[in-house]
Parts: sequence; C-alpha cells; structure tokens
Amino acid sequence: MTAPVPADVLSRLKAVLGEAGWSQDPERLAPKLLEWRDRWQGTTPFLALPKTTEDVAAVVGICFEAGVPITTQGGNTGLVGGQIPQGEILLSTERLRAVRDLDPFDDVIVAEAGVTLASVHEAAAQHRRRFPLGLASEGSATVGGVVSTNAGGTQVLRYGTTRQLVLGLEAVLPNGEVWNGLKRLRKDNTGYDLKQLLIGAEGTLGVVTAASLKLFPVMASRATAMAGLASADDAIRLLARAKEEAGGAVEAFELMSRIGVDFALRNIAGQRDPLEGVHPWYALIEITSGEPGSAEAAMERLLAGALEAGLVQDAAVAQTDAQARAFWSLRENQSPAQKPEGATWKHDVSVPVSEVANFLREASQAMVRFAPGCRICAFGHVGDGNIHYDVLRPDGGDDAVHSARRDEGSRIVHDIVARLGGSISAEHGLGAMKTAEALRYKSPVEVAALRAIRQALDPKRIMNPRVLF
Amino acid sequence: MTAPVPADVLSRLKAVLGEAGWSQDPERLAPKLLEWRDRWQGTTPFLALPKTTEDVAAVVGICFEAGVPITTQGGNTGLVGGQIPQGEILLSTERLRAVRDLDPFDDVIVAEAGVTLASVHEAAAQHRRRFPLGLASEGSATVGGVVSTNAGGTQVLRYGTTRQLVLGLEAVLPNGEVWNGLKRLRKDNTGYDLKQLLIGAEGTLGVVTAASLKLFPVMASRATAMAGLASADDAIRLLARAKEEAGGAVEAFELMSRIGVDFALRNIAGQRDPLEGVHPWYALIEITSGEPGSAEAAMERLLAGALEAGLVQDAAVAQTDAQARAFWSLRENQSPAQKPEGATWKHDVSVPVSEVANFLREASQAMVRFAPGCRICAFGHVGDGNIHYDVLRPDGGDDAVHSARRDEGSRIVHDIVARLGGSISAEHGLGAMKTAEALRYKSPVEVAALRAIRQALDPKRIMNPRVLF
Repeated sequence: MTAPVPADVLSRLKAVLGEAGWSQDPERLAPKLLEWRDRWQGTTPFLALPKTTEDVAAVVGICFEAGVPITTQGGNTGLVGGQIPQGEILLSTERLRAVRDLDPFDDVIVAEAGVTLASVHEAAAQHRRRFPLGLASEGSATVGGVVSTNAGGTQVLRYGTTRQLVLGLEAVLPNGEVWNGLKRLRKDNTGYDLKQLLIGAEGTLGVVTAASLKLFPVMASRATAMAGLASADDAIRLLARAKEEAGGAVEAFELMSRIGVDFALRNIAGQRDPLEGVHPWYALIEITSGEPGSAEAAMERLLAGALEAGLVQDAAVAQTDAQARAFWSLRENQSPAQKPEGATWKHDVSVPVSEVANFLREASQAMVRFAPGCRICAFGHVGDGNIHYDVLRPDGGDDAVHSARRDEGSRIVHDIVARLGGSISAEHGLGAMKTAEALRYKSPVEVAALRAIRQALDPKRIMNPRVLF
Repeated sequence: MTAPVPADVLSRLKAVLGEAGWSQDPERLAPKLLEWRDRWQGTTPFLALPKTTEDVAAVVGICFEAGVPITTQGGNTGLVGGQIPQGEILLSTERLRAVRDLDPFDDVIVAEAGVTLASVHEAAAQHRRRFPLGLASEGSATVGGVVSTNAGGTQVLRYGTTRQLVLGLEAVLPNGEVWNGLKRLRKDNTGYDLKQLLIGAEGTLGVVTAASLKLFPVMASRATAMAGLASADDAIRLLARAKEEAGGAVEAFELMSRIGVDFALRNIAGQRDPLEGVHPWYALIEITSGEPGSAEAAMERLLAGALEAGLVQDAAVAQTDAQARAFWSLRENQSPAQKPEGATWKHDVSVPVSEVANFLREASQAMVRFAPGCRICAFGHVGDGNIHYDVLRPDGGDDAVHSARRDEGSRIVHDIVARLGGSISAEHGLGAMKTAEALRYKSPVEVAALRAIRQALDPKRIMNPRVLF
C-alpha cells in the first residue's frame, strides 16, 4: 500500500482541476475501484478527472514534484489489475473524450484518451472507414487504454495489434511535461520512436492523452465460415493453406474445441451447433476483400480444396449476416460459457504458430497428470499463436480445491510456453497480476534494460508504480 | 574526430577476434570508409570483422570497458553518413551472414545482420514466401542495416516500414551484453517492447546481430498501371479512390512529374514515354491480390471510373511483365536521371497524405522565388506522403553557385514540411548529416526524453557517437 498523500498536494490538485475535475465521494469512486470481475478491490484518496491535456499535465506535475504516485485508468476493462489503485491518486481519462479530427485522405482519426473504442468505430463508419480493432469490451474500453495495453483482438492476423495502428501520440510524461507526438505520418525516421515505448507501457511511462489512429477502407466482400477439424495440427495446416491461397486476405482464424462449443450450447441462450456432426476442433475463418465477390470465391476454393485434401471434416460458409453473427457468437461466448462450470485457471499465452499444436498436446498431457479429471477449454486467435488456455475443475469437483492449486498449475503451463519460445501474456499485459511471473521468464539483460529506461523517464517511479518491472 | 584508441585495446580486440576477424590493411578498409556517393570519407584505426554474436559481444564489451567508441556498418548503402567512422573502431557485420531458420508455418525468416536483403528475398522465394521490403540497394543492404535504419521502400503503403516487419531481434547492447529477443511471436505483451527502440536507432543503442522477419504469401495476381494526371491534387484523390475501391490491396502508389520523366528519357538508355500524350504528373499504381484475376479486375475498374470522373487524363495497364518493369524502371531512374543535369538539393521528406499537394505547391512557389530558374523534380512514395523533393540548378546554371546555397534552400523546404506536420527525414534517417537540422524541429520535451533513454542504455556514449541526438 502506498504512503498517504500529503494534504497540501490534495489541495493543490483541487485548485488546478476545479470543482468538476475531482472527487472524493465514495459512491463516485466505487465503480472505479472494483475490477469488473471482482478480482481486485482498490482504494484511493483522490480521483482526478482532468478535462484537458493541460489538466493532466498539471496533475502529473504536482505529483511528480511531491513524489506522489498515480494510477491511470481508462474504461476499467483490464484483466490484470493494472488499472486499480492501491492508495495512489487515481487519474481517470473519462472526460478526455473529444474526437479531434478525422481525415479520410490521411485515413486517420485523432481521438482523446477517454473516447471509447465503440465511438471510434462509429466515427470511422460515418466516413466509410474502419478501425480494425475489435474487443468484446469496446463499449467501455478507451483509446488511452487500448494504446497503453497494446490491445489485440480478433483482427490481429491481418492488421496487427494496436501498436501497428498508432500513427502518433500525445502524452504527459512522468515529469509533467506534455509531449506532442500527434503526427499522422506513415514514415518518419528522425530518431527513436518514442511512441513505441508508451504503447503497451501500461501507464508506467506517462499518461497517453490522445492518439492518431490508422483507418482502413470498408471491405466490399466478406466471407465467414466454420470448419470442423480432426486435430489442432489440421487447424495449423488449414491456416497455412488459407494464408497462402488468400494472399493475406485472411482477417480472422479462430480456434475452438468441442468442449468449448458444448459449454456454449449448454450455458448460453440462443447458441446453435454450427455443423451437423460433432468435431474435436472448430476453426472460425473470415476472409475479406475490396473486390466484390472475391472473399466468397476465395473461401469456397479454400474449403473445397481442404475438404478434398482431408484437412477439414466438414464446413459451412455463412449465407447471411445472421449466420455469420451466430458463428462469432459461439466464439465470443467461449469465455462467458465457462462461468457456470466452476473454478478455472485462465491463461493468455502465445507460442509460435508452428508450435500451437505441440503446446496444446504438451500442456494437456501435463494438466491431466497434475489435475486428473480437469476439463481443458482452449480457444483463441490461433492465427496469431494466441491461445486462451483455460483449465476448469473436474465436473462436479470442488471450486476451492481447484482454485487453491491455480498458481502451481499455471506455472506448469507457463513453463511449457516458455520452452516453446512463447509469451505468458499475449494480449492482456502484466498489470499487477503477472509481473512477478514474467520476471521468471525474461532474461536479466532485458529486465535491466527495461528498468533503466523506466528509471530514466520516471526517476521517482510515480506512474502506476505497482505495474511492470 | 574521436580520440586515439589505446594500443592495449587494439591488442585485446585482435586476441578475441582471431586472425580472420580484424584488419588494419588500408586496401581492405578503403571501400568501407567511403560513402558510395563519395560524400563522406571516413577513417578508422581498426576494422572488426566478427563472425558470431559472441565475437560482437566481446568487441563491444572491451570497448565499453575502455570507453572506446564504435561505428557499426552493414552494406554501406546509407545516404546520411551514419555508417562512416571518423576515428572510431569500425565494426562490420559482413561475416554475420547465416540464415538461421525459415519456417513457412510461422511465416518467419531468422537472418543474421550481415545477410543481404537480396538473400532474404531469395530464401523466402524458395518457400513460396515474400519479404515485402524492396530497395534499389538490396544487393548490398543488409538485415542489420535495414532494421537499424527502419528502411522504407516502395511497398510501405501495404506492408509498412521495416518496423512493421520485425518480429524479434538479437542484439549486443552498449555494455556488451547479448540480448536474445529473437522471438517469432505475433503477440507478446510483457513490458516495453525493447526491439522497437533498436529499430531505427541507427546503431546508437547496440549492435543488431540477427532479426526474425515476417514473411508473406506470394500474390496470385498483380496489376501495374501508369496514369497521366493533371495535378498533384488529382493524384491524392486518385489514391483515396484506389484505397477505398481496392480495400487495402494497393501495394504501391508512386508519383512522378513530367520533368522527371523527361530527365529519364533524355539521360537513361532504354526508357520509353509511358503514355501517348504528355501529362504534368504520373502515378505508378500497383494492386495485388491472392485471388487470381482480382488485381487486374480492381485496376480496370479503378481506372475506368477515374477516367470517367476526369481524375485521370490517360492510363495504361501493363499487359506483360516487361511493360510493368518498364514502368518501374522509369520510377527507379528518377534519381539517377538527374545526375547529368547538374547540382541538386535533395530532400527526403514526408507530410500527411492530405497535405502532399499543398506541400508541392508551397515548396515550389518558395523555391522559384529563392532560386529563379531552378528545376524541381519531385517524386516518391506518395501513398505514404513521402516525397523525394529535389531542386536542380537552372538549365545551364553553375553547379558551385547552386551547391553553395543548399543549406539555405533546404531550410526553406524543411520549414514548410514542419509547418504541415511533416518529417524532414521520412526514410533515410538522420545519420551524421541531418541531426542538427532535426533538432530544430523536435520539441525539447521529446529530445530530452530520447537523450535520457540513450544515456540510460549507453552511459559512455560509445555506440555511433556522432549519430542522432
């Protein structure tokens, strides 16, 4: 727990922020202090609600001078507890919500940190453009949050993570100075790319106040299909085939297992079995193209060839938007559908695509040995090698018993990931939850370099001090 | 000029490198001390020729301990003098030339720093893959060089600069420690992304010894066209239309002016006028697709619509590979064709795409005022807002007179670029040439942050000390 904040700091903060710019009202604070799945309960002496970048600079400047730590929060949708203060000043970006510009010639939107991802999508659509970052939480998740956590999602295969979608940033650095790096250039080779450090820094190197984000054209054709597969090996072979045949037009390639489909059918209303038979694995594939009819043609050819080659057991191409949405609903419910099944150990890992099937095999063998009867629900963005690997308690087992063994079980999974050259946090970040675990797998050389960078930019370690190394 | 290197440092370097691993032979050194356009002549007491990453670590470690500076050189194709030592130890990566791995499932090639870009292309092609970074200098340019300068080229519009193509790096940090960040993951959110700092750092934060690079499928269809345009404004409108209609399938959109075409026809053998009439501007457009026939269809539709809308005066789609090559040859000869025309001020700038036409207008008005009779040859990757803006002496003018006014003229151009939110070095970097100029336009806040990072990682400033801030 952080040391108490001196009273004079609080009065200076109140003075610069004005009446609407702060709160100490427990009711106002409560929703920002509880992580949305109830895993972290925080505490703060003061909620700063800056309206402008200058407000943010004033807050950070006062805190820097006094050595008072700050935790920054966007939409409070993070999954690793990085946004929940434990005694620090809480800086919310919720009032930084202007869309400053949208230029279809530059294919750019300039949005402040508190703008929700859903608002970015709406603004882009009004100009026949698209921001290809989709998250289940997009109604709440904010620009500042997705930048600071380098958010991923379902379109990374084609468009990359948030890092690839940022053209420029404006940020308040830990010393309270405003860095205006809000460029909208596709090329700029004039020294180290400072924005790359802030992207994914989880708020430890400053407060992102606005971002220039890349937009893309709306696609003229889109084909969505579900394929039933005999094995995860076949999924990887099908992915390779799809990427080769469709020349980079594969936008999503998501994997689910039969147990995950069963959970969804059992626990989520309105779900339908996507294919007639039962298959050990399912791939949800989406191909898009600017050329009318092209995505559909590519999908038909891909699936026909894969069926003939025995790579696919069965497949269905969505004939309507409703069918496509039903396929996606099954995928998006893979996590919610587990809830009624009891305690689970969740992992957000990535491995090289070529190792996905090996990972699934090795991890499952290890889990079955370690926790006999456990139910493994693996799904995710297999096109990026990103697996959400969830290990549920045995059917009818005891939640508390299972939960008590989580750390030990996760360690086994993470060790396998590390041995295969993977990452123990593919898209969720480290936050308060995974930093210690990450330190086990990072080389000391790298950790020393990262700490030196943090020390150089935030010598008093006031920004999100509980987060990262 | 750097201080002399102590004799004991030289003998320690010789001992760790072995006989084949170093040279002080003036003939062996000469080609590495002269920039290829004869603009920089360097000097060095010692050429280190490490064969392995461990060799590099030993060299850097010895130099770090002794505080002896190093300049690292790849293929010696840089355009801003960053690779030419002025008294420092010269570390050449030419013997680090193993392709360590190529995995078509991961779509990755792992190549050492001294592997040429052409060799990467060859290795990829053997597996029906493609590394979408093309440079005129690719026979000499190396992996370490393109990473360290974040090289661009003609396919940035679709695939991004080198930064977007790097999955992992191995590097020797300034303290001589080896950082193994040679991952091949598409997603990894476990702290600051150290490789992003090394990309484009021009060797100042360490020596890149190997890289994991993204590969892409070979495209099934490709259409190349040349369009004649009335104005640069029309070029930008055509670009926007092409991006919208082709849904991200536009791979190149290059601009040339009539004077540049005339220079090529006059000064380069075997060039042909691409269209029947004469047009103020020309756009070279390339569309690719994984779907057979799709690129050709998209190109035909785009040009038919643009002709009808009056956006294009005339256009020709290449019917054969030879025709496509002829279009590209005209584009690639825009710079060489200027040589016989006399002295020139060259600029490698970028502006937001929406400002390209404004930039050309404003800069040309300013140049005509400043240097009456000058001939402006602007061309480049307009799809990225990247213009090579060259100002030649008046026809029949005096080279020396023109050259003497270069700095003053460039300042005018750069001021316009800065006012329009652009960059004075879009793809060439800063090197020894542009650092002072860049300092004029960077904010002090940013420069202080970049210097703090450099100081943190290279406290003795031994890596490429003359380069960057």
